[in-house]
Amino acid sequence: MLISVPATSANLGPGFDTLGLSINLRNEIRIKPSRFLSVSTKGEGSSNPKIKKNSMFLNIFNEHYKRLSGGKYNTFRFEFMNKIPISRGLGSSSAVIVSALTASHVAAGVKYNKRKILNLALKYEPHPDNITPAVMGGFNVSCLHDGRVYSKKHRLPNYLKAVLVVPNKTISTNRSRNVLPNSYHKEETVFSLSHAAYMTALFMSESWEQLKIAAKDKLHQDRRMSMMPELYRVQSLALDNGALMSTLSGSGSTFFTLCYEDDAKKIAKILDEAFSEYRVMVYDLDNYGVTSKS
Amino acid sequence: MLISVPATSANLGPGFDTLGLSINLRNEIRIKPSRFLSVSTKGEGSSNPKIKKNSMFLNIFNEHYKRLSGGKYNTFRFEFMNKIPISRGLGSSSAVIVSALTASHVAAGVKYNKRKILNLALKYEPHPDNITPAVMGGFNVSCLHDGRVYSKKHRLPNYLKAVLVVPNKTISTNRSRNVLPNSYHKEETVFSLSHAAYMTALFMSESWEQLKIAAKDKLHQDRRMSMMPELYRVQSLALDNGALMSTLSGSGSTFFTLCYEDDAKKIAKILDEAFSEYRVMVYDLDNYGVTSKS
Repeated sequence: MLISVPATSANLGPGFDTLGLSINLRNEIRIKPSRFLSVSTKGEGSSNPKIKKNSMFLNIFNEHYKRLSGGKYNTFRFEFMNKIPISRGLGSSSAVIVSALTASHVAAGVKYNKRKILNLALKYEPHPDNITPAVMGGFNVSCLHDGRVYSKKHRLPNYLKAVLVVPNKTISTNRSRNVLPNSYHKEETVFSLSHAAYMTALFMSESWEQLKIAAKDKLHQDRRMSMMPELYRVQSLALDNGALMSTLSGSGSTFFTLCYEDDAKKIAKILDEAFSEYRVMVYDLDNYGVTSKS
Repeated sequence: MLISVPATSANLGPGFDTLGLSINLRNEIRIKPSRFLSVSTKGEGSSNPKIKKNSMFLNIFNEHYKRLSGGKYNTFRFEFMNKIPISRGLGSSSAVIVSALTASHVAAGVKYNKRKILNLALKYEPHPDNITPAVMGGFNVSCLHDGRVYSKKHRLPNYLKAVLVVPNKTISTNRSRNVLPNSYHKEETVFSLSHAAYMTALFMSESWEQLKIAAKDKLHQDRRMSMMPELYRVQSLALDNGALMSTLSGSGSTFFTLCYEDDAKKIAKILDEAFSEYRVMVYDLDNYGVTSKS
């Protein structure tokens, strides 16, 4: 069987722990019944002995495969082809969680629906902003209620592209969370809430021209970007050259830029020249989320 | 000339200072050139000597009429027919501001567009959540940027109705603002931001069935409802009898309930029986906002 799961960019500026979208940059996992467990890993993380083992994937897969298969316990060969950069704010952990949960259902021959996978994923990642687009594809708004994810999806048109600037270093998620305060001024709260709601309305109505305004945030982005100040130049170069919006991807360090197809090459070239030590990549957006073939 | 302006319900639960919609409950102002200034007021507020004078309307009208007419200064007779309850969280001040600004343009023979009226209105009311639907009609998301209102509208379908429960007493706007803290815990902030964005997505995609979930708030509603605890019973009666959502209207004291047309009468009857001392009214929603005939 073949499982394919997309990268995701969360927050999108003001949509802290709430907004996210899916990018057609995919990890693929090929799984075959096998006389004994074996794992091969290519691509991102394959030179890292810790990641190479894919123990997070295997632990989640085993837990659910065991439960779902009702004791009929086969062993498998897993071939990982990882394309999503690791620990760069592109949802690599969410991709592992979502693909492992999906794989466990397919391997056990148990039908799944995406809402179920999403709610199972919440056990492993307590914020819904990456796992929702990883499961559903497209632009997603998520909120939590009684331990469940409630979300709404909007499909992304194919004339929009993602330009990703992936730095050669990480912002640690812990440091990135610790830099945030425990409380916010009322004015910061209302600012970000109103901009997150406005951004939602713009995505839902496909009104791209005002995204730049909607993308302003006062909760997390500046506090995190100040840990890697060169990201301010990534953002201003992107916006000065026709980007529709340019925001820190998740908690960083990747910067996500949304633009029209016609502007993508130019923006990528300018960013590539300015940041030759970073990877700059242009991708389609994604509307499928996790997929499986048995 | 005839100016007509709708009532509005702001916040809608989590959309603090951000979300609002327009209700087809309208104040009308008839204005005719006249040898001397005269004012008549019927309806809401007509027995209150302070409101009867309509000095807020006249001050705004005069300021802008003077500016727009370029010195050619006529006097008028103003006939106010007020239907919007005053100081009950139904946007009566916004209605006065928006109608006065619109009237000043019509009286001076100066073409206006709605965006211009909206940005002028912001000078008199610093939050955009009532003035935006009062101008635009429909469901609106608003945010502020460099002293301007950015907003997105979605039309409301005619199979939805508003059930308004208008108490016989006010919650003072000042007290209602003072009861709010100056800062919020991160968890309250994320909760309300995510619910406001989710509610926006549901209105924009006309997915009414999850509105109950989206309508939860942790910024203002409980703090304000605790000043008039009987409102909790209004809310639970509405929700238990088929309401799609039921939220404090603005800073209160009115409670706004959204429901399908088929459920409106039943919900109104139950609320009317339970709160015989309050006014219970069913209205259409509005998609026009302020209108003028010269």
